[in-house]
Amino acid sequence: ENILESEPIVYRRIVVPQNANKEFCTDSGLVVPSVSYELHKKLLSVAEKHGLTLERRLEMTGVCASQMALSLLGGPNRLNPKNVHQRPTVALLCGPHVKGAQGISCGRHLSNHDVHVILFLPNFVKMLESVTNELNLFSKTQGQQVSSVKDLPDTPVDLVINCLDCHENAFLRDQPWYKAVVDWANQNRAPVLSIDPPINEMEQGIDAKWSLALGLPLPLGERAGRLYLCDIGIPQKVFQEVGINYHSPFGCKFVIPLHST
Amino acid sequence: ENILESEPIVYRRIVVPQNANKEFCTDSGLVVPSVSYELHKKLLSVAEKHGLTLERRLEMTGVCASQMALSLLGGPNRLNPKNVHQRPTVALLCGPHVKGAQGISCGRHLSNHDVHVILFLPNFVKMLESVTNELNLFSKTQGQQVSSVKDLPDTPVDLVINCLDCHENAFLRDQPWYKAVVDWANQNRAPVLSIDPPINEMEQGIDAKWSLALGLPLPLGERAGRLYLCDIGIPQKVFQEVGINYHSPFGCKFVIPLHST
Repeated sequence: ENILESEPIVYRRIVVPQNANKEFCTDSGLVVPSVSYELHKKLLSVAEKHGLTLERRLEMTGVCASQMALSLLGGPNRLNPKNVHQRPTVALLCGPHVKGAQGISCGRHLSNHDVHVILFLPNFVKMLESVTNELNLFSKTQGQQVSSVKDLPDTPVDLVINCLDCHENAFLRDQPWYKAVVDWANQNRAPVLSIDPPINEMEQGIDAKWSLALGLPLPLGERAGRLYLCDIGIPQKVFQEVGINYHSPFGCKFVIPLHST
Repeated sequence: ENILESEPIVYRRIVVPQNANKEFCTDSGLVVPSVSYELHKKLLSVAEKHGLTLERRLEMTGVCASQMALSLLGGPNRLNPKNVHQRPTVALLCGPHVKGAQGISCGRHLSNHDVHVILFLPNFVKMLESVTNELNLFSKTQGQQVSSVKDLPDTPVDLVINCLDCHENAFLRDQPWYKAVVDWANQNRAPVLSIDPPINEMEQGIDAKWSLALGLPLPLGERAGRLYLCDIGIPQKVFQEVGINYHSPFGCKFVIPLHST
């Protein structure tokens, strides 16, 4: 009897240097391990060193996050360029940091696609340059910018996008504007998409229905909702340089769902 | 008898300052007028002034052009992350200019998505900074770079992406490497996608099956093949600033087909 052994299908095509404390899998069963915040940060900084600048990353994250949001808003059924009477409304909640800048980039692309965007960003005397650059571009859209929670809509919006939190500015959570905007989001009954949320479960003020992780996921918990992974354009050898053996899990997509294993 | 008049559907939602010498329309019948090369250039330069830098544009064009190419290559049927044995091959032909840099960015994203990319770029002693930056990033992928036509494959590839031509370097067409690479492309029987091709019909050496226009189309002719339009992230008020009354024809998409009217 001649048994032809078929090559085994390799489901584990991404290997990280530390034991992942949480693993996810794609629709087709490929394992996507989580990485620590520190390793994720190192990955981005090595990518920057090779020329994948923050500006490029902001642009790519904005495009892919807006593609995901457009699909959550109903895609072609809701966004027909011939029908300008049923524009969906998105409230975009941003903190004064790089994660906020990612959100503003996403908001510009949404506004470019006829979504009515209301951007909340608290007033600060001195803003990060990346935030200022994104704001300049956003101000050229039809999108609206508010700095006070009372200017956010009273009625439910179609989608809330949460970019308030970041690992390194946890102290923002104690500020009055932060607490007010969390209350607003919890009272508004819109579903929430979190872009690049931090890990800390305890202090997260707004529960997400969906979360979008960038490049590789952090070990996010249940409060992050349904997890999606976004390709942010990092080439394979950059992953290698930080000790990650990486093969793209994306196929032809740029945003894919991840499932808990 | 009570006749409710419905509001007329406005098909002409983009108005350009000069009479367009050619008009296109979208699948849903919205008119997309062409613009002259000079107006297109002015649009990009005003966008840059407001912070939509060349780097951002290269990243966004690279992402959207690669999304189009991935779909031309067969999309999810061809690019299954569990099947690494049937990787498609793309020959990417780039000149030493910004249009070439756009192509290299597209090539990086294709390579990140498991496409086998062979980038042809002629050797020049001094390269544009934008080309060098893209090359640095491309070199971190599994993609292959060649500078001689004889290193391009003898057998048909799945797709040729043409970024050889640009309006302002027409003299390149007289160079031996240019002629050799045109001959190679015409002998290889792969279908050709041109990214951001120039208008000049006479001198175009490679016929395209598809062409991708950026932002608004130039008055491209038949040799450009089937035309697609790519959103490159320019906000409405930037269009206004150069005299274009603009409403997005994209709906929820970032690349849409255009038809001759």
